Amino acid sequence: MRIEDSPSPAVDYSRVFSSAIDRLHAEGRYRVFIDILRNKGAYPNARCFAGHNGPKPITVWCSNDYLAMGQHPAVIAAMEEALHDVGAGSGGTRNIGGNTHYHIELEHELADLHGKEGALLFTSGYVSNEATLSTLAKLMPGCIVYSDELNHASMIAGIRNSGCEKRVFRHNDLAHLEALLAADDPGAPKLIAFESVYSMDADIAPIAEICDLADKYNALTYLDEVHAVGMYGARGGGISERDSVAGRITIIEGTLGKAFGVMGGYIAADQMIIDVIRSYAPGFIFTTSLSPVLVAGALASVKHLKASTVERDGQQAAAAKLKALMAGAGLPVLPSTTHIVPLMVGDPVKAKKISDVLLAEYGVYVQPINYPTVPRGTERLRFTPGPAHDEAMMRELVDALVEIWGRLELRLAA
Amino acid sequence: MRIEDSPSPAVDYSRVFSSAIDRLHAEGRYRVFIDILRNKGAYPNARCFAGHNGPKPITVWCSNDYLAMGQHPAVIAAMEEALHDVGAGSGGTRNIGGNTHYHIELEHELADLHGKEGALLFTSGYVSNEATLSTLAKLMPGCIVYSDELNHASMIAGIRNSGCEKRVFRHNDLAHLEALLAADDPGAPKLIAFESVYSMDADIAPIAEICDLADKYNALTYLDEVHAVGMYGARGGGISERDSVAGRITIIEGTLGKAFGVMGGYIAADQMIIDVIRSYAPGFIFTTSLSPVLVAGALASVKHLKASTVERDGQQAAAAKLKALMAGAGLPVLPSTTHIVPLMVGDPVKAKKISDVLLAEYGVYVQPINYPTVPRGTERLRFTPGPAHDEAMMRELVDALVEIWGRLELRLAA
Ligand SMILES: Cc1ncc(COP(=O)(O)O)c(C=O)c1O
Ligand SMILES: Cc1ncc(COP(=O)(O)O)c(C=O)c1O
Repeated sequence: MRIEDSPSPAVDYSRVFSSAIDRLHAEGRYRVFIDILRNKGAYPNARCFAGHNGPKPITVWCSNDYLAMGQHPAVIAAMEEALHDVGAGSGGTRNIGGNTHYHIELEHELADLHGKEGALLFTSGYVSNEATLSTLAKLMPGCIVYSDELNHASMIAGIRNSGCEKRVFRHNDLAHLEALLAADDPGAPKLIAFESVYSMDADIAPIAEICDLADKYNALTYLDEVHAVGMYGARGGGISERDSVAGRITIIEGTLGKAFGVMGGYIAADQMIIDVIRSYAPGFIFTTSLSPVLVAGALASVKHLKASTVERDGQQAAAAKLKALMAGAGLPVLPSTTHIVPLMVGDPVKAKKISDVLLAEYGVYVQPINYPTVPRGTERLRFTPGPAHDEAMMRELVDALVEIWGRLELRLAA
Repeated sequence: MRIEDSPSPAVDYSRVFSSAIDRLHAEGRYRVFIDILRNKGAYPNARCFAGHNGPKPITVWCSNDYLAMGQHPAVIAAMEEALHDVGAGSGGTRNIGGNTHYHIELEHELADLHGKEGALLFTSGYVSNEATLSTLAKLMPGCIVYSDELNHASMIAGIRNSGCEKRVFRHNDLAHLEALLAADDPGAPKLIAFESVYSMDADIAPIAEICDLADKYNALTYLDEVHAVGMYGARGGGISERDSVAGRITIIEGTLGKAFGVMGGYIAADQMIIDVIRSYAPGFIFTTSLSPVLVAGALASVKHLKASTVERDGQQAAAAKLKALMAGAGLPVLPSTTHIVPLMVGDPVKAKKISDVLLAEYGVYVQPINYPTVPRGTERLRFTPGPAHDEAMMRELVDALVEIWGRLELRLAA
């Protein structure tokens, strides 16, 4: 049935759906996807298609391909080789025809990266979080999950779908976490779920201290390192490598789609946990496995970033530079110790307006970040400078922002 | 914390997980993934790595790359071009930096394929089912979902995660479905969720009759065409195209990972539904979008199969031939009207044993299908002959099966 054909005035499907859309417009958070193609070899340059006479050149400032590994010659070459050697798709689930030698090699590589016995690939970081958390908590009757209030939607979905008890602790607040742990039955299985780098606030969790609490209260730990893998640690093993605490974390989760520049997700843990998730998680079992082309690319990327630090160093330098320039110009950049540069706006309509002007008048692409990605009232722009954003680009960007800030009568610091 | 370090005898994490694994061994359904690489250009030939001295040549009989499109020159060329033009990954979510011109083009192509206003891409068919069903049912307060008892795990997950009321109807049983619809409040929003081709039993749903019931009881319809897209209909639009009922279905869901040979999933529907799912579904919003390389490959594949029927015809001929040969040899092949050839075993240990012997002694790869993929007691082997499996391969396969059937003292028909 088409939704507008409902014969019953009691159930007007069109009205239900159109009012859901109206709510988005009313709140200024209806999303329009901008239509771009990056220029390989020339990133952050790209072409924008929307509403122009032919593609228009732009500079991308909001990609999560933080290190431009999606354009790295070693990654491209590995993908091309796999494409010609085995073809486009895997043709099946991991269990039924879709397990390739590439998958096994990449799992070994990722286990090694995090110093764990094993690793398991998923089609995305989202799926790795949802599938692992929902399955793990279900397998432990009476399990209680302690979840940082700023945890990513995919972790929230996994915890929710497990149907287990959940306690939300205030962001990075150890005292609150301990109070919640202490209040629960010592005999109940427990799991603390959190991130290392929080990508919208650009801050970092106190991993060692959370592990101390886990030891004290006999809890397992689940760490999302999605925004840190490839980026931190001597070999790109994330904040847990940098802080030498990877061995204390029960499960480390990561993505292949951000710093590694490709697509896919994974967990690394003891072999027994890998075996349990592999055997019980519907989101792992009942889906076509990652294309061997992607797996080959990710393998090359992980290997490269284990050995090379020039990309990480260049990115950190670019982020520090951009933060300094913005702060110098009085722009409300959030203080941060990471590679992400959030600029606070605090209003969804204005955030979108700034982004629209930047694109239309300055050829700068940065997406406004609105609810539900961040809490209402904390709408922002989020810049991710990479090793290839040079100082001239940064100065142009900051000048443009200062002009627009003035035009919209937004406040600059003295 | 490592799982074996639990200081509390009250919570022995190792025991919880090891007993979960023990249950699988006890039931004979512990899965070992076989390690293979397909030979592009020579599929169904592949190389098997497990436990041999170097890779060993095998013939794959259980791939869902039904038409060998994963090796088609047009698909490979399109992926290679995208790889060199834009790089490996999209670098972001659809809303934040990860929307490319390829994504938009493929969505137009898929909408056209199914005669719908719009389409929406997801990272997999699993995610498209989970995200769409859970979001849709949540947006309609009081919604009741009617679900075929053999629906795929991804639909079951979506319905479950929506938290809505659910009624399970007996497989393809119109009378039962109608009884359930008639018993519920006429004023409640309703959604009937089902598949066109059921891939484990190889049968087909009575789509037109289900649409009649939907009209009569004012219900929306959700049709999973994962095993039918690219395979049926003049342009590969699935059973709903073949039966000229696509216009009566509210939402058609498909995958890019089976007949289209790549990876990814999608829905096609009225623009308003696309807009609602795009705006509200966490599984769509909060994840890196499909790699443009995959999208370019899928685009080439969908376009090719819209115009060409030689792959579909070749596949149907191969399936008919194999079914006839198996039946002629007295093997318990399930009667089926589709492209899938299930051979019933009815025991998980024997199904695995047959598969092991086929691989080790005959170089034939076909995976045993055990619980939870099919109900216990209906364990089977599932063959997917393609246009490239020739009659000599089929005769070898049937001879091998007859020999093993005898060896394991299984029954052959007279
Ligand atoms: C913290 C966090 N976890 C998980 C994900 C999901 O990873 P993926 O994009 O690979 O699905 C994201 C972003 O997309 C994220 O920001
Ligand atoms: C009926 C059905 N729906 C959905 C899916 C999931 O599709 P995908 O493999 O693209 O995740 C599958 C199989 O994997 C399936 O058999």
